[in-house]
Amino acid sequence: MRNEEQTIEGRNAVIEAFRSGKTVDKLFVQEGLSDGPVLTILREARKQDTIINRVRKERLDQMSETGKHQGVIAQLASFTYAEVSDILEKAKESGRPPFLFILDNIEDPHNLGAIIRTANLAGAHGVIIPKRRSAGLTATVMRASAGALNYTPVAKVTNIAQTIEDLKKEGIWFVCADMDGELMYQVNLTGPIGLVIGNEGEGVSRLVREKCDMTASIPMNGDIDSLNASVAAGVLAYEIVRQRLQNK
Amino acid sequence: MRNEEQTIEGRNAVIEAFRSGKTVDKLFVQEGLSDGPVLTILREARKQDTIINRVRKERLDQMSETGKHQGVIAQLASFTYAEVSDILEKAKESGRPPFLFILDNIEDPHNLGAIIRTANLAGAHGVIIPKRRSAGLTATVMRASAGALNYTPVAKVTNIAQTIEDLKKEGIWFVCADMDGELMYQVNLTGPIGLVIGNEGEGVSRLVREKCDMTASIPMNGDIDSLNASVAAGVLAYEIVRQRLQNK
Repeated sequence: MRNEEQTIEGRNAVIEAFRSGKTVDKLFVQEGLSDGPVLTILREARKQDTIINRVRKERLDQMSETGKHQGVIAQLASFTYAEVSDILEKAKESGRPPFLFILDNIEDPHNLGAIIRTANLAGAHGVIIPKRRSAGLTATVMRASAGALNYTPVAKVTNIAQTIEDLKKEGIWFVCADMDGELMYQVNLTGPIGLVIGNEGEGVSRLVREKCDMTASIPMNGDIDSLNASVAAGVLAYEIVRQRLQNK
Repeated sequence: MRNEEQTIEGRNAVIEAFRSGKTVDKLFVQEGLSDGPVLTILREARKQDTIINRVRKERLDQMSETGKHQGVIAQLASFTYAEVSDILEKAKESGRPPFLFILDNIEDPHNLGAIIRTANLAGAHGVIIPKRRSAGLTATVMRASAGALNYTPVAKVTNIAQTIEDLKKEGIWFVCADMDGELMYQVNLTGPIGLVIGNEGEGVSRLVREKCDMTASIPMNGDIDSLNASVAAGVLAYEIVRQRLQNK
């Protein structure tokens, strides 16, 4: 599943990357450019459903390693993303109720890696992240996942709220990690479940929270506001593990 | 409790730092140097029980920000360390059984910060770290602790195994996080407790493990070896929280 982390610079190289079927995680195009090759790149990007970032020349100059970006830089995914259907398939094969992680904009690659590591060891079937704002599957994430990325499928979706809607039809219940939720020990987490973890600073976004069936909170006995996102994910994931063990 | 993170370079500056009572976390002295000022520095370091690292000139050149280290660089603690007795005092005041974290060589400052954050929110009374090998209380740790370092005392001790021996006499029981331990749900964690978390790569050292009364394991349902150290600390700390809540 492993590829090398790569940044591709320059028009021909970027067009070539798209055409050869590489997964472009993020595309950066200089503001105002709209000549033939750039339009081709934008067309390919839309076909692949790649996020297009229009940025100033100075930003590209900063990002550039070669100094010859010609107004276009593409970041390739270091790892192949799975499909949501792969995750459901994995759940089916396991003979256990589906157990997914939904990460609503985890931005720190160390947190993302640590959460994928936790997902693997808690016996989850996969992790779903959004295309926008989330950290992508970079080499840093791979390292922080301690290899879990080789086993636990990670799918990237355009719209988390929509994905939750779709998965509800498959019989999966969604529990949102939220400080204002019911104490996690009192929430029934034994069925087919999607655990929704929010952004490091802002928590789960309103739209996503509204789609969830339940909200669960971790007891807080201290002076500060919240746990580190990957620690919170671990504590909640293991409450699911505990309830399922007890329920056997 | 907050000071700024600081590196002090040069003989006079380092002597001055010691004499003005600053806490030097680590001292780096060039191999082979033993002139008067250097001997003075070494004497002050021994008085403060500071770890002395003899290193090559090239290492100091690399570390130096000013380029004028004169063979001596001192790293100051960014924060004031507490004493173990402060932690016991805090436990007494809380009216709850003592709950401590013992970190046997956590090296990553992000993990250290995240664990102090967890200790705060799980209602622990303090964190004990060793002088050698552990990350110190740097500005990075403060940031990663999300401010918890302002509330949760952190004590630094020379010998973790000895500290455990001493604290046993205070009636505290020690549970060691270890994959080969009993499943954590089956270990009684409701009394006065010290949770011992090991190094990121090597786990809890043999000597420290042998001092522990119990070993507890987190159920592992995946393909890889272990959770991130701060996630494991969070999962175990919250098993203690759960058992204590249930026990009320």
